[in-house]
Formats: sequence, structure tokens, C-alpha cells
Amino acid sequence: MKIGILGYGNLGRGVEYAISQNPDMELVAVFTRRNPSDLKINSNAKVVSLNDIEQWQGKIDVLILCGGSATDLPVQTPKYAEMFNVVDSYDNHKQIPTHFENVDNAAKEGNHLALISTGWDPGLFSLNRLYANAILPEGKDYTFWGKGISQGHSDAIRRIEGVKNAKQYTIPVEEALETVRKGENPTFTARQMHTRECFVVVEEGADKARIEQEIKTMPNYFEPYDTTVHFISEEELNEKHGGIPHGGFVIRTGKTAGNKNHVIEYSLKLDSNPEFTSSVLVAYARAIYRLSKEGETGCKTVFDIAPKYLSSKTDEELRKTML
Amino acid sequence: MKIGILGYGNLGRGVEYAISQNPDMELVAVFTRRNPSDLKINSNAKVVSLNDIEQWQGKIDVLILCGGSATDLPVQTPKYAEMFNVVDSYDNHKQIPTHFENVDNAAKEGNHLALISTGWDPGLFSLNRLYANAILPEGKDYTFWGKGISQGHSDAIRRIEGVKNAKQYTIPVEEALETVRKGENPTFTARQMHTRECFVVVEEGADKARIEQEIKTMPNYFEPYDTTVHFISEEELNEKHGGIPHGGFVIRTGKTAGNKNHVIEYSLKLDSNPEFTSSVLVAYARAIYRLSKEGETGCKTVFDIAPKYLSSKTDEELRKTML
Repeated sequence: MKIGILGYGNLGRGVEYAISQNPDMELVAVFTRRNPSDLKINSNAKVVSLNDIEQWQGKIDVLILCGGSATDLPVQTPKYAEMFNVVDSYDNHKQIPTHFENVDNAAKEGNHLALISTGWDPGLFSLNRLYANAILPEGKDYTFWGKGISQGHSDAIRRIEGVKNAKQYTIPVEEALETVRKGENPTFTARQMHTRECFVVVEEGADKARIEQEIKTMPNYFEPYDTTVHFISEEELNEKHGGIPHGGFVIRTGKTAGNKNHVIEYSLKLDSNPEFTSSVLVAYARAIYRLSKEGETGCKTVFDIAPKYLSSKTDEELRKTML
Repeated sequence: MKIGILGYGNLGRGVEYAISQNPDMELVAVFTRRNPSDLKINSNAKVVSLNDIEQWQGKIDVLILCGGSATDLPVQTPKYAEMFNVVDSYDNHKQIPTHFENVDNAAKEGNHLALISTGWDPGLFSLNRLYANAILPEGKDYTFWGKGISQGHSDAIRRIEGVKNAKQYTIPVEEALETVRKGENPTFTARQMHTRECFVVVEEGADKARIEQEIKTMPNYFEPYDTTVHFISEEELNEKHGGIPHGGFVIRTGKTAGNKNHVIEYSLKLDSNPEFTSSVLVAYARAIYRLSKEGETGCKTVFDIAPKYLSSKTDEELRKTML
């Protein structure tokens, strides 16, 4: 299986590593908007200018798109779905139906197969929501995120005047989790489910009181939550908060006859959010490769993919070892 | 979607209730080996002698087999897969490949579709093993069961001379779970993963010391574990241990670049093992109904079924609300 990567940030490097963990796959090319000779990568794949990507049609089984959801993927996924089988991690939940339409049309146009919005949320969390809802139709869903770094919230702090750098952890409220697990079907405000903890590096002479106030009162991002702000040095930030951990919990509680209660819980605890997302992208690239061999075209999501397609084992091995 | 049930024990009653929670389904008949007029059921479905089941071909979309794995399903699933689309909860892991072959041949013979070995283990736990293995190829799997009633272990105690009744709880060792969650990749003995707690009612004048000794030294069942035995009255057993709770944990820990650790955990906490299993059977009956409409035949497992087929929602609704 010959894989291409478009975009060599955290996600692209994660995909490169994940491919090395899967012997049935080979990374053949990394496509970049940068000057290819300026880009050092960790494998022996070719580094190719994005301008030359069209010449790689027919030479790549699946192209994994490793750009961002804000501006890259809405353009890139439909564009390259016309030329290649593609997989992306588009995570703007509200825009997924639109993105799906665009990619579906393009992929059918080019007779290719695409899978959008995989990773862990959307992705594995979505799968667990679906399975749990189908099994317990009378019940309630909860998704908690963290403990982990929220890129969006960290960026929001960095835009405040006087802030040099910042990292923000989203933290689920343990008591809220416990209430859910007891099957009490609580209804929560945002504040009751998550807290936010911020580590902030300021410029010399910056007004810390004003910055803390600006963070805590920022609408949508911080105002609806209990937020803690710590001012630390750049060194401490790099040393103690240099990772990109994340994770979370998807819980559904539901009832069957005689008011019997059932709790289905799925959780992830990830040292590296982008590397884990990359590992999911790579497993779905295998599925897309196989389904395209079966003649499938158009756009798919994780909901459309039978689990067996993700595994390198045969159906017989799976039944024998994992069922 | 017209559903039939074969067998009206705990599982069959659970399926009957689960169907009532799914408005797109209708229970049309319960087939029984007993005299139909002796069987009172909780719905308006017809109660039919198993001898007359052949007359129901063409009138039932999916027949849900609610017998036991020891002697019922190995015979019934192949037999009825020739006449109907069927779903079963066959849970003898080692014999699954043989059962699969038998059911696959029969279903193809009769041009029907069958799904075997669904429920939670095998079933949802299997799915989580597969997904987690595909995503983290370098890692380690752990399955813990409980806290819950083990039917097999309870039965084993009941066979001891002087025992009137017994319930056995399988309990995961909390410290073992914590070690796994930390990504320490431990290797466990059976004793380190689970303890066994027994509640035993004895006949008048029975030798409790001898019974306790016989339980604790029983090979395979209890000898490899730390086992606690409580002698209680029949009233206390019925009052405090009348339920059939169960559950457990499937955990995979794995590494990506730079030794970063990831933990995927799936857990169930079920007030009623058979009612939850029934709910899973019913969701997969929906999938089998739909896939049979698409022309599929032969035997499937949970690995072969794209998640969307389990849900009553349309693909568009799923993408909009659950992705």
C-alpha cells in the first residue's frame, strides 16, 4: 500500500511514524508547499513540491491530508479527492455535512474514494456515540474532554496584548464524571463539566492583573468556565508544558426493562494528540485502500466502514484471535 | 421490520423488551419448545410451537436466537439460518471458527444472512479490541470482567454436595487496572487480575468447612484465584443477590514516536447482563435486516458490519448529530 502525505506539521510527522509501525504500508512521498529542499523528513520518502502533485496520480494508493480544518482541508480534500483516494481529519463538527457534500461530489467525479473527519473526535468518539445509541435507545450521552491541551484556547490567550506564549488545559470535572457513571442522568452547565487551567508567559512589564482578567472574561472561550491562570517563565512552559496530551470520555447511560441501568464508557488518555490522530488516519487509510479495490467511490465517514477493513489481519485471524 | 424470537428465557424476554424500545421493529412471534399455551409473554406477539416454525418462512425478517451456547446454538443457528435471517449470541470463543463455518454454509444454502457471536463479549468488547489494535499496532491488550455474576462459576458451586444455591461474583482487581492504565504493560497471573466472591446457601446440617474447601480448591474455576466464601440464607441470597449484573473493561495501551503512551479504554457497567446482551442482539438484527435487503448472504460477525447499519437514523442524520 503506497501512501502519500500532504503537509508535514505535527500530524504529518505522526502519520510518517505510524506508517513505519505498519509493515503493509509504505510512505512514498511527502508533499509540501515549502521548498522541498528546505524540508528534512524522518523517513526515506521523496519530498515533493505540492505544485507537482498531479504527476503522482496512479502512483499513490491513498493520500493522507494533514492540514488544518480551518482553511486547508475545506479546499484540499475536495481538490485532491478528484485525483487520489484521500483521508482527512476535518474536525469542524458543524460544517461536516457541507464538507461531506463537497468531497463526495469531487471523489465521484474523479472515481476515487474519500474518508473525512476521522481521528478521535470526530472519529473514535463518534463511533462510540453511534454504537451506544443504537444499543441503548433510551438513554443520555455525555462527552467530556481532557485532561489535555486545547489548541484553540491556547491560541486565544496568545492573542491578548502582553502575552508571549500560553498553554491551556481543558480538565473534566471528576465529580461530574462520577454523577454520570452512577446513571443519575444529570443536566450540566458548561461550568459543571470542565475547568480550564492556563499557563501564561508574559512580556516584560506586562500587566498581569489585566491579562488574567481578559482571559477569565473572554466570552465562549473562558467566561462560561472556572478558569485558573498561572504566570510562569518561558523555560518552565517549555519544560513542563511542551507536550500535546489530550483525551476524554464518551459515556452513554441507558435503561432497559424494570428501570435497570447500563453504563457504556469509552475513554482515551493520550500523551500526544496529533500522533494518536495520525495513527487513526493511517488505520483508515488501510480501509480506504481496500474498499477502493472493491470498487467503492465517493465520500465515507467512520460510520460507513466495517471494522475489519482497519486491521491488517485476515477475517479468519480476526475471528480466531479477537472475537 | 418483523422479528421472531426463538427461546423465551432471560435473553428472549430481554429481546422482547428491547424491541419495544425500537419503533422501527415489531415482534411477531415467539417460538418455544414448550407447549405454547403454557407460555405467558409480555407482548402481543404470537406464541408458536417450534414444531411449526417452518410455516413462518417469509413472514419474519430476522429470527433472534435466544438459546444457550453449550447445546442450543451450535444446532439451532445453522438449522434456522437455512430458513431465516438469524442473529445469535454464541459465546464459546474457542469454537467460534467452527460455528462460523457451519452457519456460513447453511445461510448460503438457504440464501439468508446470519450474524453470530454478538453481545458484549464476544461483541462490543471484540469490536474494541479490533479498533484499538488497528490504531495502536505496538501495544498490549487487557480484558477484565466484572464486577458481575458468572453463571458458569455459580453453577460449579451448586454442583457441590450440600449446596442448595449459590451466586459467584467475578471482581477485577483495582490495582491491576490502575497499573494497566499507567501504561506499565504488566504481565499478570489470573490471580492478579480477578478475585472471586461466592455467596452460598447450604442444606441443613451441611459441612460448611468442607464446602468452602471444595470451592477454593476447584481446579480452573477457583484454585487459580483468591476466593472468598460467604454462607448466607436463601432469603438473603434472593434479596441481595437476585440480579444478574456484569460488565468489564477492555484496555489497550500502545506507543507512538518517542515512547509516547496512549491508553484506549472501553468499559461496561450493566445492571442486567442478559437484558444488555438482548439490546445488542436487537441492534444487530436491524443491521442484518438492512444488509439482507442489499443482497448479502452467508455468515457475518460484528467485524463485518459498518456501524451505520445498527442505527435507525439516516446517514445524513448520523453525520449531522453524532459525528
